[in-house]
Amino acid sequence: MERFVLGLDLGGTKINAAVIDGAGKILSSARDKTEAELGAESVLDRIVKTGEKALQGAGIRADQLYAAGIGSPGPLDWQSGVIIESAHLHFDNFPLGPRLSQSFGCPVFVDNDVNAGTYGEFKIGAARGADYALGMFVGTGIGGGIVIHGKLHHGFSKNAGEVGHMVVLAGGPRCNCGARGCLEALASRTGIVNHLRNAVKDGIKTSLTKHHGKRLEEVSSGALKEAYQREDKLVRKTIKRAAKYIGIGIGSLVNVLGPEVVVLGGGVIEALADEMLPVIQKSAARVAFEYSLKGVRIVRASLGDDAGVVGAAIIAKERFETGVQAPEVASEAGR
Amino acid sequence: MERFVLGLDLGGTKINAAVIDGAGKILSSARDKTEAELGAESVLDRIVKTGEKALQGAGIRADQLYAAGIGSPGPLDWQSGVIIESAHLHFDNFPLGPRLSQSFGCPVFVDNDVNAGTYGEFKIGAARGADYALGMFVGTGIGGGIVIHGKLHHGFSKNAGEVGHMVVLAGGPRCNCGARGCLEALASRTGIVNHLRNAVKDGIKTSLTKHHGKRLEEVSSGALKEAYQREDKLVRKTIKRAAKYIGIGIGSLVNVLGPEVVVLGGGVIEALADEMLPVIQKSAARVAFEYSLKGVRIVRASLGDDAGVVGAAIIAKERFETGVQAPEVASEAGR
Repeated sequence: MERFVLGLDLGGTKINAAVIDGAGKILSSARDKTEAELGAESVLDRIVKTGEKALQGAGIRADQLYAAGIGSPGPLDWQSGVIIESAHLHFDNFPLGPRLSQSFGCPVFVDNDVNAGTYGEFKIGAARGADYALGMFVGTGIGGGIVIHGKLHHGFSKNAGEVGHMVVLAGGPRCNCGARGCLEALASRTGIVNHLRNAVKDGIKTSLTKHHGKRLEEVSSGALKEAYQREDKLVRKTIKRAAKYIGIGIGSLVNVLGPEVVVLGGGVIEALADEMLPVIQKSAARVAFEYSLKGVRIVRASLGDDAGVVGAAIIAKERFETGVQAPEVASEAGR
Repeated sequence: MERFVLGLDLGGTKINAAVIDGAGKILSSARDKTEAELGAESVLDRIVKTGEKALQGAGIRADQLYAAGIGSPGPLDWQSGVIIESAHLHFDNFPLGPRLSQSFGCPVFVDNDVNAGTYGEFKIGAARGADYALGMFVGTGIGGGIVIHGKLHHGFSKNAGEVGHMVVLAGGPRCNCGARGCLEALASRTGIVNHLRNAVKDGIKTSLTKHHGKRLEEVSSGALKEAYQREDKLVRKTIKRAAKYIGIGIGSLVNVLGPEVVVLGGGVIEALADEMLPVIQKSAARVAFEYSLKGVRIVRASLGDDAGVVGAAIIAKERFETGVQAPEVASEAGR
């Protein structure tokens, strides 16, 4: 009997699922909205249903799964499968891994969503073949994943890789995390939009207000791309500024971590890679030592939305095969 | 026949050597000036003589050494034992490891001086018992070392750990490396002194000018400590400022790397640990996520000047015992 792995990717707005064969090939996939506002149990239910839809699409029964993996927003404990906290998803010490194990009747391994994406790119995407890789995903926030000697790095905190919360401009704009001048506060879509809003408040003109009125916080990465292409001066300057800071962050990380490949993904990069990547590379080169940057590739991700599900599935497959114990809920049910 | 390891620590101004027994205990040590201005061959000669002095002190013959280790300023190739470049030491692709192997008649393993110091603290000092450690040494510059899963992390560049060249204040003061706003430019002795000099230029008073005239660049960490203790306002403010930036850097590294212990050493910290450490810890806590900082110790180094020689010796011992090949010079002599 051929056996399969299910990969799941839990985001703030959508859930992706995919069935992967032994070679890492996607056999079928499914997606649904997260509807986070309905609460943790509802989200869990939707994850299970999305996974089942992917199984059906591949014509596979749940008992043909030997493992599943899920990438989730954190902080989380990848060993116990518990999501420590996720304000947006209403998770509060939620045993996501164990609960999903019950539902699917197989071990379910948990990791950070961005770690899963990085690992997907590392195993079959843009960072394939590297021994040391750094993933940076620029969307509403900025997340990262670190691969060292071919393995995901979790660190003592179990939540290493938070490259968006590296301070690059001390005393700079306030970040959602409470600190000032984090890379995320400067260069995520949130950081970009905040910068645009402040500029508009200061009387600087942008074509975005014509399209979006004063509700610039709802501007998507695609809308930023369009404004960039119609030569909106403020948008161009703001996007380049974000790219400069991303490059500064990457240059610092090249000095500190010494990755071979830096993979850039996420909504902002997907929309604006052609515009941002050259600026990012140049800015990184101004910070990184020449000998540390030598041979280093700073490239865009190649798997798009699939990185997360594929990465989660491969993580599950590898942990299962190396005998890592998936956490169980059974004995904890009474707690 | 009992056998021993020789540890060497090559600095810009001095050379330390120590003979270590199987348990990592220092049996004897020696030191000399580097006299870097006399050129690479002269420095090599002094390293050998300092090592021999340590051997004599322990009553040991060179043939009782099974390996030696040396920590050197970089960038360097720890695998080939070649110092790629060190302007101050006049090293330019200098095969330090192989040349020392010839002199001592045993394998000589090379690593970055700060890596060696970090590893010493990790094995028998303030970071003992941790699985993930970060060393940060604040002196004329700022260097760092990273231990992941009990091993020194070198990365693809072979020179990872350059925590002093992480940008924490984009657009900030120019660093010796050419970039702007590196931690080293803000918080090393050089950064501190530059800040003091600029303040004095702006007419701010400090007791230091009474003691050192206008040559503030020669102010030692000890002199800074004295000025701090006599309540020199400018010095106090400047030291606290440096501590704040060090804390910001550490907070960022806690988010990115997830160390369990952060060990702080180097001349500035040795002189001013009591004054700086509380500020550093507080500043790090403002940047690091609470769940990532939980259980993390930010402490001062405990081995002082011995960290480098002990670390280099233990690195040599471990590489030798795990069968790592030390680079040889013989076949390359004709190149």
